Amino acid sequence: MAYFFKRYHVPGTPPGTLNITAPESRIPLKMHLVDYTEQEYLEKELATAEECHEYLERKSVTWIHIQGTIDRDTLTGFGKLFGLHTLSLEDITNLGQRPKIDSFEDQLFVIMSLPAISENVVTIEQISFFLGKGYVISFHEGESDPFTPVRNRLRNRAGKLREKPADFLLYLLLDIVIDQGFPLFESLGEDIEALEDELLDSPGKSTLEDIHNLRRHLLLLRRMLWPQREVINFLIRNDQGFIDEKTIIYFHDCYDHAVQILDMLEAYRESTTNMLDVYLSSVSNRLNETMKVLTVIATLFMPLTFIVGVYGMNFSVNEQSPWAMPELRWYYGYPFIWALIIAVAGGMWLYFKRKHWW
Amino acid sequence: MAYFFKRYHVPGTPPGTLNITAPESRIPLKMHLVDYTEQEYLEKELATAEECHEYLERKSVTWIHIQGTIDRDTLTGFGKLFGLHTLSLEDITNLGQRPKIDSFEDQLFVIMSLPAISENVVTIEQISFFLGKGYVISFHEGESDPFTPVRNRLRNRAGKLREKPADFLLYLLLDIVIDQGFPLFESLGEDIEALEDELLDSPGKSTLEDIHNLRRHLLLLRRMLWPQREVINFLIRNDQGFIDEKTIIYFHDCYDHAVQILDMLEAYRESTTNMLDVYLSSVSNRLNETMKVLTVIATLFMPLTFIVGVYGMNFSVNEQSPWAMPELRWYYGYPFIWALIIAVAGGMWLYFKRKHWW
Amino acid sequence: MAYFFKRYHVPGTPPGTLNITAPESRIPLKMHLVDYTEQEYLEKELATAEECHEYLERKSVTWIHIQGTIDRDTLTGFGKLFGLHTLSLEDITNLGQRPKIDSFEDQLFVIMSLPAISENVVTIEQISFFLGKGYVISFHEGESDPFTPVRNRLRNRAGKLREKPADFLLYLLLDIVIDQGFPLFESLGEDIEALEDELLDSPGKSTLEDIHNLRRHLLLLRRMLWPQREVINFLIRNDQGFIDEKTIIYFHDCYDHAVQILDMLEAYRESTTNMLDVYLSSVSNRLNETMKVLTVIATLFMPLTFIVGVYGMNFSVNEQSPWAMPELRWYYGYPFIWALIIAVAGGMWLYFKRKHWW
Amino acid sequence: MAYFFKRYHVPGTPPGTLNITAPESRIPLKMHLVDYTEQEYLEKELATAEECHEYLERKSVTWIHIQGTIDRDTLTGFGKLFGLHTLSLEDITNLGQRPKIDSFEDQLFVIMSLPAISENVVTIEQISFFLGKGYVISFHEGESDPFTPVRNRLRNRAGKLREKPADFLLYLLLDIVIDQGFPLFESLGEDIEALEDELLDSPGKSTLEDIHNLRRHLLLLRRMLWPQREVINFLIRNDQGFIDEKTIIYFHDCYDHAVQILDMLEAYRESTTNMLDVYLSSVSNRLNETMKVLTVIATLFMPLTFIVGVYGMNFSVNEQSPWAMPELRWYYGYPFIWALIIAVAGGMWLYFKRKHWW
Amino acid sequence: MAYFFKRYHVPGTPPGTLNITAPESRIPLKMHLVDYTEQEYLEKELATAEECHEYLERKSVTWIHIQGTIDRDTLTGFGKLFGLHTLSLEDITNLGQRPKIDSFEDQLFVIMSLPAISENVVTIEQISFFLGKGYVISFHEGESDPFTPVRNRLRNRAGKLREKPADFLLYLLLDIVIDQGFPLFESLGEDIEALEDELLDSPGKSTLEDIHNLRRHLLLLRRMLWPQREVINFLIRNDQGFIDEKTIIYFHDCYDHAVQILDMLEAYRESTTNMLDVYLSSVSNRLNETMKVLTVIATLFMPLTFIVGVYGMNFSVNEQSPWAMPELRWYYGYPFIWALIIAVAGGMWLYFKRKHWW
Repeated sequence: MAYFFKRYHVPGTPPGTLNITAPESRIPLKMHLVDYTEQEYLEKELATAEECHEYLERKSVTWIHIQGTIDRDTLTGFGKLFGLHTLSLEDITNLGQRPKIDSFEDQLFVIMSLPAISENVVTIEQISFFLGKGYVISFHEGESDPFTPVRNRLRNRAGKLREKPADFLLYLLLDIVIDQGFPLFESLGEDIEALEDELLDSPGKSTLEDIHNLRRHLLLLRRMLWPQREVINFLIRNDQGFIDEKTIIYFHDCYDHAVQILDMLEAYRESTTNMLDVYLSSVSNRLNETMKVLTVIATLFMPLTFIVGVYGMNFSVNEQSPWAMPELRWYYGYPFIWALIIAVAGGMWLYFKRKHWW
Repeated sequence: MAYFFKRYHVPGTPPGTLNITAPESRIPLKMHLVDYTEQEYLEKELATAEECHEYLERKSVTWIHIQGTIDRDTLTGFGKLFGLHTLSLEDITNLGQRPKIDSFEDQLFVIMSLPAISENVVTIEQISFFLGKGYVISFHEGESDPFTPVRNRLRNRAGKLREKPADFLLYLLLDIVIDQGFPLFESLGEDIEALEDELLDSPGKSTLEDIHNLRRHLLLLRRMLWPQREVINFLIRNDQGFIDEKTIIYFHDCYDHAVQILDMLEAYRESTTNMLDVYLSSVSNRLNETMKVLTVIATLFMPLTFIVGVYGMNFSVNEQSPWAMPELRWYYGYPFIWALIIAVAGGMWLYFKRKHWW
Repeated sequence: MAYFFKRYHVPGTPPGTLNITAPESRIPLKMHLVDYTEQEYLEKELATAEECHEYLERKSVTWIHIQGTIDRDTLTGFGKLFGLHTLSLEDITNLGQRPKIDSFEDQLFVIMSLPAISENVVTIEQISFFLGKGYVISFHEGESDPFTPVRNRLRNRAGKLREKPADFLLYLLLDIVIDQGFPLFESLGEDIEALEDELLDSPGKSTLEDIHNLRRHLLLLRRMLWPQREVINFLIRNDQGFIDEKTIIYFHDCYDHAVQILDMLEAYRESTTNMLDVYLSSVSNRLNETMKVLTVIATLFMPLTFIVGVYGMNFSVNEQSPWAMPELRWYYGYPFIWALIIAVAGGMWLYFKRKHWW
Repeated sequence: MAYFFKRYHVPGTPPGTLNITAPESRIPLKMHLVDYTEQEYLEKELATAEECHEYLERKSVTWIHIQGTIDRDTLTGFGKLFGLHTLSLEDITNLGQRPKIDSFEDQLFVIMSLPAISENVVTIEQISFFLGKGYVISFHEGESDPFTPVRNRLRNRAGKLREKPADFLLYLLLDIVIDQGFPLFESLGEDIEALEDELLDSPGKSTLEDIHNLRRHLLLLRRMLWPQREVINFLIRNDQGFIDEKTIIYFHDCYDHAVQILDMLEAYRESTTNMLDVYLSSVSNRLNETMKVLTVIATLFMPLTFIVGVYGMNFSVNEQSPWAMPELRWYYGYPFIWALIIAVAGGMWLYFKRKHWW
Repeated sequence: MAYFFKRYHVPGTPPGTLNITAPESRIPLKMHLVDYTEQEYLEKELATAEECHEYLERKSVTWIHIQGTIDRDTLTGFGKLFGLHTLSLEDITNLGQRPKIDSFEDQLFVIMSLPAISENVVTIEQISFFLGKGYVISFHEGESDPFTPVRNRLRNRAGKLREKPADFLLYLLLDIVIDQGFPLFESLGEDIEALEDELLDSPGKSTLEDIHNLRRHLLLLRRMLWPQREVINFLIRNDQGFIDEKTIIYFHDCYDHAVQILDMLEAYRESTTNMLDVYLSSVSNRLNETMKVLTVIATLFMPLTFIVGVYGMNFSVNEQSPWAMPELRWYYGYPFIWALIIAVAGGMWLYFKRKHWW
């Protein structure tokens, strides 16, 4: 997950220029149409944008989901058919957008971020939605379709879900996108708890690296998740009346989830800041321990080495002088020196004992 | 107290799905009905939701308290009887919710967090309330019933309390939940003061661990207590008119308590941040002390060891040369060396004295 | 000054329960009544609440000041006489309240914090006020009466002051409470400057302790002084019309003082944060100095000790071999070694000189 | 990029005084006029301000771009011709202004910052715009003209672009200025990622320097880029009606870009703060590693040196005493000492092994 | 520049009490009157407040500037003549006020802070203004008159400036006060850049002291400069209509300057925070360098000293045993030991080389 993960145009490019993914890195395109009323239900794979023309005039809810990399012609085809603004089409192709909502005369255009974690790597994919009278169009340039559960529920349950208008379908889709945060943060929460144990037990270089990586992920997630709250809030305020009064309570629920996720994000961020501070203190603590070992050893052996050094001097060659190291010639000289050594070492030991150095 | 302590559904689950606790970890269910007017007072243990049907039409205040883990049937039973929204029922079962308030046409739905501390472990339990015309329903999936004092007071005092409408009962219940913060923060305040004494006297590894744990608790408490202020504030604004004008002054009192608790929380948080900084400085200070001991010892004995090393050289084997360590053959050579040693040691001692190293 | 300094009820206590100080720690009670118009002035010590009954109906300003610990009967006596709300009476007895203002139909209830510093210990006492039509009641559970200057001025000057209504009297009292901040912060400012000098000259363990204590005091003062600004602001907004238009300019002045004090508080807080950072850097700096001394000594004497160690080897016992330490048998061997020692020491000295180590 | 990069007047200079660049550091002046309607298109190099007089009355969009250092006469010439406020003219010459927007009766005056990066040096140049009825004037005291792409597009495409009014031209110019942030932040993002790798692998003095420089650049960029968001926001609010309703959606797009750039700026800033913390921990970690090496060496060799020192003592000169170092005279004395040395070294090795020191 | 630099009254002093500077530290008083219309211009030194009476009734703009310490009689003289509020007069004498604006019925009262830097010491002086119908009064208790340029311009240019009303004169005076920030921050900006160079090249104790002083100055400047923005903003909002519509654009310019100065202040503050962090890292870095030198020396010489210590043992006295240090008696024993020493030293050297320690 890089710091800069936005696709953009060279400054000066005309507004509305599409930024189509280069052919070699394209994800195969699948266009799926679902059309339903309370009684009827229909699914269809689309080959071109024009095929969905006939479903638009019917009094049903039409949902077109475009999975994979769209090509220029198909995108402009949809643009013409539904009257989509060129700036919105440009935003769909410039991946890495900040989540946002634009309201046009007869459409809402929503960009969301779909976070995912797999094998400790966090990824964020862009999902775009158009909500119009009786239809929802969703674009997702990613490998796997996140909306399969919705399609299953629409297919199976005849009743309730299919009675509701297109804005309720938008709610169902946005709800899935936002709820992806729960498993993600559950996983990150476990990582933090594991790191905290490591931090106090045995902080090493890899602990520091892990904390730093975690912070980095949280920083980038934050950039993508905060604006989502604003998007849902805009839908709740519902100034343009795109959302039915009965659906708004559901968006409130969605908003609560977004806020809970952000609460966790902020708590995690603060917690990792603390961890860096604690890490530094831990390392300083261990440095102190290391230094104490060194100091004890040096303090113990330096005086002793000095003592034995004294009696290594060769003054005894001067055999005439009674002042030339008479100790060497004492009968109990050697045992006396050992007694001295033991006394000095014992004194040191008592000194460190009193200083609580072990 | 874990970082992630929310129960949630797999993304894509239909809205309103209940998340019933697995049978093995259920807490035994107790449903208690209290029904009172100024003159009458009645208590009853309920077996099913339907039993409370008869009390609903009477002009009394009905309070149903559900303690323990509710099962799916009973919960949907209450849902149908009182017309509760399925999203609210879902929130009751998804424990670990952020405190919030939802207002429906004829009901208020409130989620609160009940903090508690026992043996240095902080726990947070979820309590949910419905306030409707003439009734309050409270749900608490926990071991011990926090509302016993209210029930006692209702039972004993015929007068004042029983005259008041259902919103006053809600105030009494919320007040208990919020006031739990006072004993909690009194206990945490004592912990902080004990830690501060330890911090400056004898900072050790366990001090760091304690500070870190305290910060973690405060961080998680904050996540749960801040939204409670908003909940009470919403009740005071009273846009839907669920609260009687005369009760509002009591909710003001409740709000003041919530704010005082948050004030303490923020002061504690900041104080523990300071403690981490002071800890680091303290450890650095002690490292410096350790290093000074080492430096003094090394500076004292290294020159002395060098001196005695010099006279350990064997140049005296060359007995022909007058230049071959003539000191060894001086009459007062050995005492002279001791004088030199004492002079060097004394000089060092004066140097460190002047540098205020002890 | 403890982190938790609030008196509170056990959760579940009925609202309006008084929390009277235990008899053994009571401060003797003094109740002082002042009643004045432009022409007349009267002072009286009260024994019971009822004695002030007669002054209430007169068209004068009545000020009742209660100094010391009030007992239950007297407090409820005042409560009945002036129609005070039971929640307000509870707040008067629950010391350690956050400053706040409550407005009732015909009364304002204000709680303020009176900070004081004596011998480096900061204390905060609670002062409560009721402002009603023609009267002010003030409660202060403390040893010394802070309002003596006001009483003196009322007594002495017949004119101006006594013309003004009861809200001006409230201003005079609040102004004294807030202006206590100036001498307090003047004293703290001097402490900070003294600490800063110490910090850069000779940072020791006591410096750290002093900075930490200062921060702690500022933290707790902040908790009490920020809400006072809100209280005065509420009085200036004057939504209920308790304050005369002509008095408002005086409350503006009071507000300016409160803001100045908070400005200083925040500046002091930030300044002490800086001091902690500087302290850590200072300690690290001194550690580096200590280490340099050690390194210089070790680097100087270790090679020399090695050299003299070489010539302490006993290879000369092998008198047959010309390879067995021939240096020992050189005529100028010993002076040569000293030359070597001096050369090595000089080289080291030049090396450290070039590295600017002294 | 200096901290203080504003050109200003001595305090007390009359408002509206021009601050013309000294002749020696002037950039050659080029004045370019473009005048177009849907059908027609005209380009012209201007020599004086008066030459553009004739184009003002026509119903076309006139764009005058002034590249390089303007002289006093030409600037006041434009001032008179278009009725520009003297304070705005002063702002054009006082380079290093904060981006801002001023609205006059019939003109908008906009100041923007054009950031650029070349060879790791970030520069910020000031660009000023006037938007009036049917004309845009742009001033840029810089070497290279950033608006060449706009001119090319106007020249080539007859249709769409040329239909739009002058406010759309302003959008095109502002869009280029703001979009310069994308390549800039892409480049900075790569720098940050490179630094992060270095930080954990091999943090050195140059890493610290690089982090500090990056922070400094971000700090200064922030000062210039935050107000640009406000400028665009002001244009969107469109209180004076200078902007056509159809153009506003384009300014929304522009605003989104500005917000995305600020989001990245803040994320980068926070990320570099983290890096400083991680750096400090890394350095402490490495200090600990260094100390461990020292401690292991000292702990290993100091006891051994003591042991061999003992047997370097000359007590054996006293050949009469059986207590005078009898070990020296043992048959296996020397091998025994080696065994002792190896045992001590091995013991130490096991001790460090158990402490996980390598 | 002290932390506490406010002059204040003892709590309990009556509102409106003047706080006149003690005679010994008074600055000589100069009262200067300027009275002008478009055609006429008059200057006069005043001896008493009453002398300006005659100019008040004329339809001219009257500006009275009081430089130095005013005495009680003169100040109350002005107070009576112009109807100034006693609280404002008190504020004029209580130096060290926070910048603020008070609006009375027919007057505006403004307090500003005049920052100045001379020889690295920042000072802040208080300037007060009254704006009334046709007059401005300014008070400055300082040595040097900052408004000389305005007086010169009024004297010299007959036209434009003199046409404008009194509020434009207030703008000219406030503009000078605010623009003093530019040279001040230019000077501080240079200090910061010099410190940054020092910081990375050779951080010493004085660097730390300089950073700390700089932070302190910025902290205190902030306390005084932030409220000035609010003052100007209040004038722009112009709720009381004291400011002419045509003058407002000039106050906007003034506001822009105030904001630019605050932007710089905040950037400088953040930059010095960074510098403290970088300083700590730099010191740690250098500590590490010091430790490496020590470790290399110790690691190199300790094993060598051990080796030569071994051959300093006196086992050779036992001439009977073939195990008693046979190496000493080898023919090439001594060269062999040197080879060993060189091999060990070389091995260490390679080890450190591989670890990139030099």
